[in-house]
Amino acid sequence: MSAHENANKMIIFLGDGLGDRPVAELDGKTPLEAQVTPNLDYIAAHGLCGMLNPVSPGRRVGSDTAHMALLGYDPMSLYKGRGPFEAKGVGLDVRPGDVAFRCNFSTVEGRRLVDRRAGRIKEGTAELAQAINEKAGLIDGVECIFKQSVEHRAALVLRGEGLDHRITEMDPHYENVDYPDCAPLPEAADNPGAQHTAAIVNKWVELAHEALDSHPVNATRREAGLLPANIALPRGVGTAVELEPFKQRYGLNGAIIVEVDIVKGLGYYLDMTVVDVAGATGGYDTDELAVARACIEALKDHDFALVNIKAPDLGGHDGDAVKKMGTIAKVDNAVGYLLEHLDFDHTVMMVSGDHCTPVSLMDHSGDAIPAAFYGCNVRPDDVTAFGERSCMHGGLGNFVGFDIMNLLTNFSGTQEKFGA
Amino acid sequence: MSAHENANKMIIFLGDGLGDRPVAELDGKTPLEAQVTPNLDYIAAHGLCGMLNPVSPGRRVGSDTAHMALLGYDPMSLYKGRGPFEAKGVGLDVRPGDVAFRCNFSTVEGRRLVDRRAGRIKEGTAELAQAINEKAGLIDGVECIFKQSVEHRAALVLRGEGLDHRITEMDPHYENVDYPDCAPLPEAADNPGAQHTAAIVNKWVELAHEALDSHPVNATRREAGLLPANIALPRGVGTAVELEPFKQRYGLNGAIIVEVDIVKGLGYYLDMTVVDVAGATGGYDTDELAVARACIEALKDHDFALVNIKAPDLGGHDGDAVKKMGTIAKVDNAVGYLLEHLDFDHTVMMVSGDHCTPVSLMDHSGDAIPAAFYGCNVRPDDVTAFGERSCMHGGLGNFVGFDIMNLLTNFSGTQEKFGA
Repeated sequence: MSAHENANKMIIFLGDGLGDRPVAELDGKTPLEAQVTPNLDYIAAHGLCGMLNPVSPGRRVGSDTAHMALLGYDPMSLYKGRGPFEAKGVGLDVRPGDVAFRCNFSTVEGRRLVDRRAGRIKEGTAELAQAINEKAGLIDGVECIFKQSVEHRAALVLRGEGLDHRITEMDPHYENVDYPDCAPLPEAADNPGAQHTAAIVNKWVELAHEALDSHPVNATRREAGLLPANIALPRGVGTAVELEPFKQRYGLNGAIIVEVDIVKGLGYYLDMTVVDVAGATGGYDTDELAVARACIEALKDHDFALVNIKAPDLGGHDGDAVKKMGTIAKVDNAVGYLLEHLDFDHTVMMVSGDHCTPVSLMDHSGDAIPAAFYGCNVRPDDVTAFGERSCMHGGLGNFVGFDIMNLLTNFSGTQEKFGA
Repeated sequence: MSAHENANKMIIFLGDGLGDRPVAELDGKTPLEAQVTPNLDYIAAHGLCGMLNPVSPGRRVGSDTAHMALLGYDPMSLYKGRGPFEAKGVGLDVRPGDVAFRCNFSTVEGRRLVDRRAGRIKEGTAELAQAINEKAGLIDGVECIFKQSVEHRAALVLRGEGLDHRITEMDPHYENVDYPDCAPLPEAADNPGAQHTAAIVNKWVELAHEALDSHPVNATRREAGLLPANIALPRGVGTAVELEPFKQRYGLNGAIIVEVDIVKGLGYYLDMTVVDVAGATGGYDTDELAVARACIEALKDHDFALVNIKAPDLGGHDGDAVKKMGTIAKVDNAVGYLLEHLDFDHTVMMVSGDHCTPVSLMDHSGDAIPAAFYGCNVRPDDVTAFGERSCMHGGLGNFVGFDIMNLLTNFSGTQEKFGA
């Protein structure tokens, strides 16, 4: 049931890592400027454009911090690591003050990390998790709650007094090296909470290793010539903070339709509807029209949807300008589908990205992302094409992620007036 | 006496609700774009333009919060309801921590609200107020100070320990319904301060009703066939906060020349000179040249004047694009008078609005307002016309209300350097 029955609908439509820098092989154009994008250009020509800075100009952000900022939650004060989103995405209960991690089932020989993904284990992880929780569920008064996700992935939540997430990572991120003990970060070397937390993690990994190494699931794997999942290494530590649920903050029923697990986790954390889409692979081959259809479906009983197509980010990380152009064609195609099937007299949409992933950098940059608002009550500017340089002339100028929900609810007519 | 004798003068000149959205009957132009405005265009062509966001892009604001923001007082942290401004405007002493209301003298039969304005009573309200204060001046240790304003209008200040303004409104805003008891807002249902405050208000209304119903003024009204002013219903509750006086903050003598009572109240609250102008009706028929002359007069012994012509906001609220065009002609006319009669080698002026009131919305929107700075030391840009779309190309880009006083004092040369 919609919180604003019959009210205008709102969409944030993102190409992940959409923006870029000039590319020599594209004659100095960006992939977005080089690709033919009739639908994005239509939106720019009939909308209000600008340059989006998720946090502030020049600030490089991750997917989690970017999406927080775009939904109006200031990551500079509210982000304390990715672990809580991962744990929430796996289905664990996460409460403010918990320290949470994502984990990999891995294979070790002694302390030597042989395979970070335990031969990409697919089955038996629920039994392994149960064995861990039985053996290591309570350490020095701290609850340790572990849950498997898909394949080798899992998450861990620590709950107790005086925890502090300023600790080093145990997962060395390389294979054929020894995994280190967990320790307080240099900045927290004398902090009793960080010392306590590091000790708990070390003890937990040791106990979990004992529970796993002798487990029947791994005996079977060894017999079959598979690598045993005989350790679980935590990483991506974070402290869970209090985030006001999306509906409570905005009075809107919100859906989140994304291909990135950590952003799904953020959606769960904000108590939004997290939509899984068949065909949304998160890869170059994703079915962008399936994503668009899911957005249309979600808006039938939600006021707001955030949609993210992951593929452009892959093109950026792969440093492949031509592949990135192809992913932008997919974004354009999905936007075209929405233009055709939604009533934009009663819908307002912002199209942009969560950050830039320049092919020349092969990583996220802090450059501003082109953005266009289109639909009901939007006052258009003079921009005629959607791209990095054209949107610099937009009527919104440079704006920040925090402004987006105010802009959307202003256009949709669902924002309370502040003052008399 | 001016704080900066011989220094350059500053003006914020506002058309209330000036900005708009494209209007179909004006061929997609806004009223400001459609109206011929030679003086506003002159200022834009010779000035520095931009788009003003009173608080931040997309944020919808009221008149009170907008004017706070434009004067550099952040309403997001400093605004706790309109009541204190209303009470100050009526001439009541208001101190930080007080809970204040505006009130209507009304007519009730039992609990049934017959007339919200007590037959638009004009005389005798001072005697009625005195009777209320004698009967209900102190309730459970809380001082209750009531004062009449013009016609049926009045204000109430509660002063005491542990008050909380998170309470419901007693004035139902409709007639021929029963007026409710005051109660804590759901969010403050368990808050002792809100419970206490609601109880005080209920008791005050009851005692005031007793004092009024049998009052000789009302006996005379009844005999004359007029509705008795036999109750006073508080609304617009707010907690008084500490606002640094304008002169203390900026070292400037400031005048405020506006037609809206609540903004006059803000002026009193900031200890500015509040100028009443004969002929400034606050309506479509206002004498805009009288307002302009009052501005010129005020600048003789003030450093700064904020001027607001209310009429464009009326056109917006009435949804009448053609009438709004006429009000914009009045703003243009007043600005022309200032151009003719002031020395802009020694004066700097920003022309803009406090918010947009689009005729299509018939209420305030969160759209940015076109703005132009003109006069001494202003570095002009390339904009040649004053309007929503032309000012999007201005050299200031999108800016916020908080920037205005810094920009003005920069151009006037009255700003202290921050740092060495």
